[in-house]
Amino acid sequence: MDKKIIDMLMEDLDQSRLEHTLRVVEEAKRLARRYDVDIQKATTAALLHDCGKLKDNNNLLKLADDFDIMMTDNKDLIHAPLGAALAQHKYKIEDEDILNAIKYHTTGRKDMSHLEKIIYIADYIEPNRKFIGVERVRRLAFEDLDESICLAMDQTIVFLVKSNRIISLDTIEARNQLVSKGNKGGSQWAK
Amino acid sequence: MDKKIIDMLMEDLDQSRLEHTLRVVEEAKRLARRYDVDIQKATTAALLHDCGKLKDNNNLLKLADDFDIMMTDNKDLIHAPLGAALAQHKYKIEDEDILNAIKYHTTGRKDMSHLEKIIYIADYIEPNRKFIGVERVRRLAFEDLDESICLAMDQTIVFLVKSNRIISLDTIEARNQLVSKGNKGGSQWAK
Repeated sequence: MDKKIIDMLMEDLDQSRLEHTLRVVEEAKRLARRYDVDIQKATTAALLHDCGKLKDNNNLLKLADDFDIMMTDNKDLIHAPLGAALAQHKYKIEDEDILNAIKYHTTGRKDMSHLEKIIYIADYIEPNRKFIGVERVRRLAFEDLDESICLAMDQTIVFLVKSNRIISLDTIEARNQLVSKGNKGGSQWAK
Repeated sequence: MDKKIIDMLMEDLDQSRLEHTLRVVEEAKRLARRYDVDIQKATTAALLHDCGKLKDNNNLLKLADDFDIMMTDNKDLIHAPLGAALAQHKYKIEDEDILNAIKYHTTGRKDMSHLEKIIYIADYIEPNRKFIGVERVRRLAFEDLDESICLAMDQTIVFLVKSNRIISLDTIEARNQLVSKGNKGGSQWAK
């Protein structure tokens, strides 16, 4: 099944996106082992997490329209719900947890499942990610999954502020929930 | 009328809160003149913006319950909706715009009225505010009201991240709307 998915992805994604995808798969497998999540589900979700990042951009907008995906102010976010729609209709994935892991892998959301958390963080820390702060999240990811997500979200929020981009309400709701549960997030690096 | 409100406030608020209130009134009047907002409305809204910050904290929680004000995770935010309820029922204010200016003076919200914007920013920049970044907002407030609010909100969001506190969804929606309209907000100080 993975082989068939990869063959299909090779048609839709460009080479660097496919390489990123395979790195996320490896990271997701490691996290799944660490946190007792079904390895096959984690593999499938990771393989398809960016299946909405089509190399043909025109196609992306047309497909988003076909699937009635709301065009928000933030075009960076379309690929995630579009990916979930493609995973369901083109790649024939029925598992809701996998579809949600794809749909929310960029923003996160309140009440994320373990699988959703793993895909979110695997995408954030895969070995080629080099941005400031990624090392802190990478270290935390295998120690405390929620804390690593809270930190990743706080860093993302500050990044979006500094780069004048739209902040997803899903991210804020997820981050607020983690803070309410005692996670320290970005406050750790402020001192 | 202002005199009667001040007499009532002297019973409910402690001295330093009352002094802050009078500084916000002066700032709100200046902003109202600059942006053609009704001076009396701005004065009344500013006088009452913190009327929910009762010196008796137990009373605050009981009153919030009496007025069915949702207790959120963020206790800092109760005083604003509570203030709007007190303004309506105790201070007999009927003007919806004044009540909303009180209710949203801490978080802001999408589609703020001019009066709401003025009270939000007057509270942020009154002369005794000394925190980092306040000077930037103070300068902008009389040049470009929306830009000053966008910057104040971005600074608030980063402050809440760094101090591990809940971020209001109203603030995010307001800030996203301002960014969508071309305001630069916190991205200006990132370079």
